[in-house]
Amino acid sequence: MQQVTLGMIGGGTVGGGVYQALQSNGALLASRTGLRFKLKRIAVKAFDEPRKVEIPERLMTTDWRAVVDDPEVDIVIELAGGTGVARQMVLAALRRGKPVVTANKALLSAHGQELFRTAREHGANIYYEASVAGGIPIIKALREGFIGNRILSLYGIVNGTCNYILSRMQAEGAAFDGVLADAQRLGYAEAEPSLDVDGFDSMHKTGILASLAHGFWVEPEKIHVEGIRNISQLDMGFAGQLGYTIKLLGVVKKLPARGRRKGGNGGAVQVAVYPALVPNRHVLASVSDSFNAVFVQGDVVGDTLFYGRGAGQDPTASAVLGDLADAALDLKHQAPDRVPAFVPHDDEGAVAPLADCISRYYLRLSVSDKPGVLARVAAILAASKIGISSVMQPEGHGGEAIPLIMMIHDATNAAMAKALGQIRRLPVVKAPPVMIRVEDLD
Amino acid sequence: MQQVTLGMIGGGTVGGGVYQALQSNGALLASRTGLRFKLKRIAVKAFDEPRKVEIPERLMTTDWRAVVDDPEVDIVIELAGGTGVARQMVLAALRRGKPVVTANKALLSAHGQELFRTAREHGANIYYEASVAGGIPIIKALREGFIGNRILSLYGIVNGTCNYILSRMQAEGAAFDGVLADAQRLGYAEAEPSLDVDGFDSMHKTGILASLAHGFWVEPEKIHVEGIRNISQLDMGFAGQLGYTIKLLGVVKKLPARGRRKGGNGGAVQVAVYPALVPNRHVLASVSDSFNAVFVQGDVVGDTLFYGRGAGQDPTASAVLGDLADAALDLKHQAPDRVPAFVPHDDEGAVAPLADCISRYYLRLSVSDKPGVLARVAAILAASKIGISSVMQPEGHGGEAIPLIMMIHDATNAAMAKALGQIRRLPVVKAPPVMIRVEDLD
Repeated sequence: MQQVTLGMIGGGTVGGGVYQALQSNGALLASRTGLRFKLKRIAVKAFDEPRKVEIPERLMTTDWRAVVDDPEVDIVIELAGGTGVARQMVLAALRRGKPVVTANKALLSAHGQELFRTAREHGANIYYEASVAGGIPIIKALREGFIGNRILSLYGIVNGTCNYILSRMQAEGAAFDGVLADAQRLGYAEAEPSLDVDGFDSMHKTGILASLAHGFWVEPEKIHVEGIRNISQLDMGFAGQLGYTIKLLGVVKKLPARGRRKGGNGGAVQVAVYPALVPNRHVLASVSDSFNAVFVQGDVVGDTLFYGRGAGQDPTASAVLGDLADAALDLKHQAPDRVPAFVPHDDEGAVAPLADCISRYYLRLSVSDKPGVLARVAAILAASKIGISSVMQPEGHGGEAIPLIMMIHDATNAAMAKALGQIRRLPVVKAPPVMIRVEDLD
Repeated sequence: MQQVTLGMIGGGTVGGGVYQALQSNGALLASRTGLRFKLKRIAVKAFDEPRKVEIPERLMTTDWRAVVDDPEVDIVIELAGGTGVARQMVLAALRRGKPVVTANKALLSAHGQELFRTAREHGANIYYEASVAGGIPIIKALREGFIGNRILSLYGIVNGTCNYILSRMQAEGAAFDGVLADAQRLGYAEAEPSLDVDGFDSMHKTGILASLAHGFWVEPEKIHVEGIRNISQLDMGFAGQLGYTIKLLGVVKKLPARGRRKGGNGGAVQVAVYPALVPNRHVLASVSDSFNAVFVQGDVVGDTLFYGRGAGQDPTASAVLGDLADAALDLKHQAPDRVPAFVPHDDEGAVAPLADCISRYYLRLSVSDKPGVLARVAAILAASKIGISSVMQPEGHGGEAIPLIMMIHDATNAAMAKALGQIRRLPVVKAPPVMIRVEDLD
């Protein structure tokens, strides 16, 4: 049986998971691929780091170049994370013509174009199923399964920490801060939670999915990002009464091609990350706890959804093993670009400015409990040609300010922002308006 | 740009969908694969069949051999259906070394071993994403994405007609016969509905999924099949009160390896199709209407779910286009077995007799409304060491027979069948007991 020799950079959680999965399921992988996988060397930060999965010392080195430069190493697995040294590692491997398997969404999102170009120039390839939505084979689905589809829209719950926090807030009627603190105690959230709760991790993943779907590389700077810190249990509750659940979504939507050639790839793409109201009757609303899911609408296939664990030792290891099999089979067949990592296929592709993007909105105002308030708010919206689809005003409790909830019809973000600025300045409006987008997913 | 020439057999619904998708998205497919796809010839039953999608007459022939034998045709698409002539068509193409793309689940299920062997012998390959769950790329996920996983269990809603009927029965509290008649009027069910409602279509698909997951070909005769004709709105209602929904499931479960070598592939596999109670809190329960979904538990990846349209012109065409891209790229790279269609990897693999398989059960008895009934039923179950987890007895309405609903703990099908035989013979039991399995999916 032919042997494939692997070198890994990173001996942390995911690295441990890959080592363990190769131990337990290496024979199965061999019987399915006809190839024997030998993990020869693992570059770690330090030999004595605490590890959940024990790695034999004879495999370890603290010098990543000893992995990349080893002529016996056929495939390099990059699990170091970050965008600094990791970029050098991946570039060094690709320049030696070695395929790279990586879980590094931040690196890909920021430097995708450079990395894929380098891979092409050196007859190597990059496999990155593990970078988005962990164990869910969504990269393979988009790149291969749906290769015959224009992707009309894609909505991803791609950050397990945020989904865990929002699910608990909804189930318990609890506030963000308390649930976050609890999630940190339980290990579902980092001590420094910003990457997750402010939406940046979702931004990296959404950028990768958008790039694959639309054939031009979406730079992270182009992606509008809002996190979940401002989601209150109050809004969670009102959304529930209206038949909705609040989820942090990565949103990728092809806008109608205005003035561009018809039937082509033209038409800009909305790429954004924000919390949104999702209808309870939709299958995406039932994705709870730390699970991830990606809802994809293709022009031929229609509605599809992919669900599973988006992070953690084992789900990520599952994706790495799938990529290792692909990389090894491509090597065996001397077809390194058999499935091209990323195919630019829309020269005209562009991210639409958020101002131009259209959605529905949930609006909560804190207003004085006196006559004429609704009329004044409605007048501002009407002047901006923004329609109101429903109003909910819970019975007042004698307090100063009462909540006024409105569901707003389709409007551009620009029109909505302008109207909100005017509403904010009304003397009867007692606090900054709360606006959350609504995604009906139809 | 390199050209790939396609020949298609079958000009019905799916054939029309493939023709149309190649027309509308052929340029996109070319830009993503670097290959131009030319559909040269389509074998049809008759030139003047009624068609939703018009096919130019110059492409049509009524002689399938003119497609298979054409030396210019690189890839044969078989959409004829059935297991007779279709088998000859596929074998003829493979023997000429031509890759075959097929949506034919019945053919694969019944003759998979012969077809895959013939493909191997002639350096050809079979691509069959369209054969199971239409547009959902579940074959690719199992065969490639989860290649590093032992598949512990798999539960599939793989027949849209049955799911449509059950969803409407649940939503409307309606009876099977009326909903079936309505589904037939609306085109959701065939005039002759047996293939769907008696579970045979699900059987073919479940057999294919089980074979891929476990590495030995599961012959359809080995699969226990029950359909949905006996599901009543009464049981739908009681299931709802208990927090469950009734779904027709394809069930593939690895049984614990008893007396076989540990850690190996040993341990027989349950492969069956039956209606089952699924907990409402589980994401599989929210799959309604004609949608399909497959829930897969892998030993590394954990819980995953794949959701989408399982049949129809466009979803199936999406799968065929994905397979065409795979087949064409394999041809281009002269790597016809780059992704082997099916890899036998468990020589010891066997389907477990249903009698040995364990599950929980929902039991509805029609009993006399007098004291001592529950005691007698409970005594029979206790004597068979079968535990009762809950009992529900709705208030009597003065009638002769009243319903008695029990949820039963884990028991083998053999033990349950024996106990049911005894219960049936109790004079206080007025009708054949209704037994539906419960799948908790945990």
